[in-house]
Amino acid sequence: MEIQDLLRDLHTKNNSKIIMLVADGLGGLPMEPGGPTELEAADTPNLDDLAKRGVQGGSVPVLPGITPGSGPGHLGLFGYDPLKYPIGRGALEATGVGFELTDRDVAIRCNFCTLDADGNIADRRAGRIPTEESAPLAISLRDIKIPGIEIFVEPVKEHRFVVVFRGEGLGGNVLDTDPQQTGVPPLEPVATHDDSNRTVEIAKEFLAQAGRMLADQPKANFHTMRGFAVKPDLPSYEEAYGLKAAAVAVYPMYKGLARLVGMDIVGTPQTLSEQADLVKEHFSDYDFFFVHFKYTDSTGEDGNFDARVKKMEEFDALVPKFAALDPTVLIVTGDHSTPAYLKSHSWHTVPTLIVSDCCRTDACQAFSETETLRGGLGQFEAKYLMSLALANAGRLGKFGA
Amino acid sequence: MEIQDLLRDLHTKNNSKIIMLVADGLGGLPMEPGGPTELEAADTPNLDDLAKRGVQGGSVPVLPGITPGSGPGHLGLFGYDPLKYPIGRGALEATGVGFELTDRDVAIRCNFCTLDADGNIADRRAGRIPTEESAPLAISLRDIKIPGIEIFVEPVKEHRFVVVFRGEGLGGNVLDTDPQQTGVPPLEPVATHDDSNRTVEIAKEFLAQAGRMLADQPKANFHTMRGFAVKPDLPSYEEAYGLKAAAVAVYPMYKGLARLVGMDIVGTPQTLSEQADLVKEHFSDYDFFFVHFKYTDSTGEDGNFDARVKKMEEFDALVPKFAALDPTVLIVTGDHSTPAYLKSHSWHTVPTLIVSDCCRTDACQAFSETETLRGGLGQFEAKYLMSLALANAGRLGKFGA
Repeated sequence: MEIQDLLRDLHTKNNSKIIMLVADGLGGLPMEPGGPTELEAADTPNLDDLAKRGVQGGSVPVLPGITPGSGPGHLGLFGYDPLKYPIGRGALEATGVGFELTDRDVAIRCNFCTLDADGNIADRRAGRIPTEESAPLAISLRDIKIPGIEIFVEPVKEHRFVVVFRGEGLGGNVLDTDPQQTGVPPLEPVATHDDSNRTVEIAKEFLAQAGRMLADQPKANFHTMRGFAVKPDLPSYEEAYGLKAAAVAVYPMYKGLARLVGMDIVGTPQTLSEQADLVKEHFSDYDFFFVHFKYTDSTGEDGNFDARVKKMEEFDALVPKFAALDPTVLIVTGDHSTPAYLKSHSWHTVPTLIVSDCCRTDACQAFSETETLRGGLGQFEAKYLMSLALANAGRLGKFGA
Repeated sequence: MEIQDLLRDLHTKNNSKIIMLVADGLGGLPMEPGGPTELEAADTPNLDDLAKRGVQGGSVPVLPGITPGSGPGHLGLFGYDPLKYPIGRGALEATGVGFELTDRDVAIRCNFCTLDADGNIADRRAGRIPTEESAPLAISLRDIKIPGIEIFVEPVKEHRFVVVFRGEGLGGNVLDTDPQQTGVPPLEPVATHDDSNRTVEIAKEFLAQAGRMLADQPKANFHTMRGFAVKPDLPSYEEAYGLKAAAVAVYPMYKGLARLVGMDIVGTPQTLSEQADLVKEHFSDYDFFFVHFKYTDSTGEDGNFDARVKKMEEFDALVPKFAALDPTVLIVTGDHSTPAYLKSHSWHTVPTLIVSDCCRTDACQAFSETETLRGGLGQFEAKYLMSLALANAGRLGKFGA
């Protein structure tokens, strides 16, 4: 039995409030042997104060050594085993641009490409065409009409855009048309399961019309299709945990991921301070608040240790605004590590803090990778964070008599 | 999804080098309350130095409380869930004497026994007949001929030897013929699955011929057959991890286990120093090196604490020879504990150390059971060691987007 099956049986309701603050890519590495991580280098008096009152541990995003993308990273924090609930690439890309998928949709990541006179791919990314040029082209493809199907086209960035087909009987089991090499023609879409035969027909028609519309373009005279995916079938927070949940996020990707698990998207905040205001404003409307802070990740991707330290401090400075709401359970965590040293996501455990009146405080004196090693939560897979949250909120009944 | 399924999808190639030093039975116990373990009593400046640079943790060989044999112990370190990949006794015994099994083989552990005049077993081990007497008898059984089958007989020790049948359609699902008691006749071999009917026929014929050949022996006038087993079907290191792997071991058992996962066996070293020379010599030929050191285990089995301490120190003295090769990832671990106090393998966690430039060093100042408890790897199942190794070597892509 999976933890979520258990929680579905055991959860109860009460008036408790849970706030989960997710500092994206929170965990880090020292830049030189013996040095501090970003979180350790940062001056974070408020988080350190919470660390003294709470219980700390190291969250393993997926399994030891496995580096997650944002999708699996957040699913884990939301309590969904990321290995059990893969999110198809197309679905994630659509989610990332704020597109709200329905059960009748199949989403596809598309790349503009350049075909030569013989119809072979000369450039798989259409010369990395700039967004100013590619976005209008993507939008022009909205004119494509296929009977019985609604079509959505959303520009992403440079050569990338998303296509969503909406209709009946559209499966996502279709192979990529990108041959992953140049000098050969694009592949035809091919179904790997009968449930996707109709998707293939529609994809072919879409490609045919797009080919005619783009034929005269100097760079982007065709496009490939990849990562065909339907909306992942995730139980909602209400079903899984009995929680009415709100997401307070700045970026579309995280709003989208929260929407996939049935959270309401609250407001259109631009800063963490506005996010805190929104939580306060809606505090009586929801049981659970997911608050996402992006910049601890993006500075890590940039390899900018000092900027990341500053973002940790900005994050810390706003924590009291959430703590002041006196939630029953306050969680501070991250979806993975993004050490500036690696300039990428990584597999390392993520410092994670739970503060409640019954959390069994440990001896940790600061919120940091090093202190985490003597934390009361030990090291645990991220998918168990929600059971700990519910338990600390008094929202779980006893298992067995 | 199991960790290995994930690694098969995520692994990538680069020029990194991984060295895994396995000190057999590394973990220990104090001889009296409050005393040091063998590793703690030993003067190990080189391992302690690595501990300061690396990250440490306690490897759980199988599951908490479970003591592994050499087979499951090593499979775990090699990243194969020992519960998912059982190695049949016969296959392990054949592997242990350096016999290279093929997919057409069934291997059987045999015991010489003594039958009385009525054909009942008088001694299940033929009076623990010494190897000098039993080995020639085992070799004489190589004269047994059965049409369509190749037969191999390898002496082991005292009353034990191995028989391998090679041919088509030979299953390993056959019950032991040893009745586990005296005063009764040996059992007939019986198939528990139709795939092994032919194995049973051949085993009966082998037993009949052996009975005639041994009839006049004073002690070993018959033998029993146990642990019928085919070669375990393990994905290779190349398939599972994309690693070209070499095993540098002294003893046949460990060469055999490494061969089962597709490692090349390099050289015929007699000492750890020669093993280091071989790793150096072949450093550009392989991505991964498994180096096995036996004596930390055998001294534990002997219950000789002081000798085991000395072997720990001998091991430590050679560690710099491996570290000097500057591998991307250096791992020091053991396949289980063999505390002199218990004179046997045990279930305790095994001190395990990973040194790389992105290992996230912890505060450990020495390599020891006690320091391990504040190590950054926490306690983890041995089967995750390879995912951590690959991650530290930069050989794993991201899971999901």
